[in-house]
Amino acid sequence: MKRFAIGVDLGGTNLRIAAISESGELFEKVSIAVRTLAHRDQVIDELCRAVRSLAVKYAAQGGFAGAGVGVPGILYVKTGTLRKSPNLPGWENFAVRDAITAGLRTNVIVDNDANAAALGENWLGAGRDVASLCLLTLGTGVGGGLVLDGKIWRGFLGMAGEVGHIPVAGNGVQCGCGSAGCLETEASASAIVRKAKELLLSGSSRALAAAAKDGSALTAELVYQTAKSGDTACQEIFRSCGRHLGIGLAILVNTLNLPLYVIGGGVAESWPLFSPALFEELTRRSYIFQEGSTRVERAQLGADAGLYGAAYLALQAAA
Amino acid sequence: MKRFAIGVDLGGTNLRIAAISESGELFEKVSIAVRTLAHRDQVIDELCRAVRSLAVKYAAQGGFAGAGVGVPGILYVKTGTLRKSPNLPGWENFAVRDAITAGLRTNVIVDNDANAAALGENWLGAGRDVASLCLLTLGTGVGGGLVLDGKIWRGFLGMAGEVGHIPVAGNGVQCGCGSAGCLETEASASAIVRKAKELLLSGSSRALAAAAKDGSALTAELVYQTAKSGDTACQEIFRSCGRHLGIGLAILVNTLNLPLYVIGGGVAESWPLFSPALFEELTRRSYIFQEGSTRVERAQLGADAGLYGAAYLALQAAA
Repeated sequence: MKRFAIGVDLGGTNLRIAAISESGELFEKVSIAVRTLAHRDQVIDELCRAVRSLAVKYAAQGGFAGAGVGVPGILYVKTGTLRKSPNLPGWENFAVRDAITAGLRTNVIVDNDANAAALGENWLGAGRDVASLCLLTLGTGVGGGLVLDGKIWRGFLGMAGEVGHIPVAGNGVQCGCGSAGCLETEASASAIVRKAKELLLSGSSRALAAAAKDGSALTAELVYQTAKSGDTACQEIFRSCGRHLGIGLAILVNTLNLPLYVIGGGVAESWPLFSPALFEELTRRSYIFQEGSTRVERAQLGADAGLYGAAYLALQAAA
Repeated sequence: MKRFAIGVDLGGTNLRIAAISESGELFEKVSIAVRTLAHRDQVIDELCRAVRSLAVKYAAQGGFAGAGVGVPGILYVKTGTLRKSPNLPGWENFAVRDAITAGLRTNVIVDNDANAAALGENWLGAGRDVASLCLLTLGTGVGGGLVLDGKIWRGFLGMAGEVGHIPVAGNGVQCGCGSAGCLETEASASAIVRKAKELLLSGSSRALAAAAKDGSALTAELVYQTAKSGDTACQEIFRSCGRHLGIGLAILVNTLNLPLYVIGGGVAESWPLFSPALFEELTRRSYIFQEGSTRVERAQLGADAGLYGAAYLALQAAA
């Protein structure tokens, strides 16, 4: 009989839970707004309730392998304890794996959400045909996950893949991590908005000023639309994003020599605007990339990558 | 019966060959000057002759597992072909593994010399107690090798671990690899000599000018001695080297989260001069390093690391 597992993506905004078969079929997906829940214990309760409910509902589809949970932030992998989690205030130093295991009494695997997404893209997305890949998710921040020979590379503390915090800009701006000039300060949605604000202040983009005057919030999406309609100052923001991604990728290519680097997250939607500068910089900075067979591609599973990867974690662990 | 293997370090200056037991005992080491040999075929002949001779001489010590060979340069690992090798002119695109195998008729493993050194440090040196490490060798250039879970991480083309070419200096000088501001252009012996020449030209170090006027060649060693005797301009060269190493290490720590990073090569001798700036920069740029358990230490096996690692490659392959 086929097996199935539950994948959970515990985000700062939504808690999403899906039942997924070992052949990659998604039976059902549930989404619960986290902000309606008063306390982290309530989040854990809802999470466990939804997992149990799906596990019972699809029991006829196969053996239940357990639940995999992707959480945002820095996780001590051995203990399943969140170390830091800017998107889940109040969850610092919380033993999230123990809490979920207590509520479920089944196999529970907890991992960083970007790691889970990387594994998802390796299982069913852009990296189906390779053994190893690195995923970079360009969202509010820049996250990352490494899959080496089909398994998440966690590092000895479980903190590997923090590619958002590799230095790529010599005299870059201060980053929330304490460093400066990180990839996250140059290629995230927040970086795009910061640079757009600078444009508005300096008066260098009339198109952006007009678009923002509409009452529209200044978002990376608005900057993208303004760039797409031909505004050269906004286009330069995406080229700068691409150049810094190129530097970051050159670092990863020269260090790890993986066959595939996958770009996901909301900012990846602006691929046509940043990718030419990305490839130009990467080519210049990596003779390994110049060899010709290294691929850099867009993610394929969107926001579901983490759900698939989390379910796959449970399937791998139970196999 | 105990097994033994032959480790070979094929350098641009010396060809070194050693018989090493599986418990790490070095029976005998031979060194042959490469420049006395007219052609690469002659180097291969000498290499094979020395390996055969040691294999016969120590046959009574145990079963012969084969030979491991560390070569400088970029190697296609699947075919054992050198892609580029600045230190072995005329060896480009040479099928070095096939040539050695034909001359030996035994198991021959060929790998990059820095990879072999990393494995050697993992087997018997600074990384005896860890499963994974990254070695950075600071010599004329900056080489590197990754050992993940006890095995060399080669990447899909066999080109992983090229940490000398990760960008660490925003507006850095041109590197031989085609990029600019690489770790190699900031933290190698060549970088130290380049910066010392700049000092002499600008007249900012009377001590260095006096030392070089002696007829002494301007070497990294001379700059080191001048810095050690208190010359602040020369000391700043090593601090700059340390800062750039700190940036490079922050990249590696945040990406890979390994327990140990090992610094080897001739420049590592100036550890007391560059390490304070290294740790300062690394601490600032890596919240993972701030967690406290990541180690950065000096290599322990010196120039023999590559010999031990090459022998261990043969022992691993035959196991």
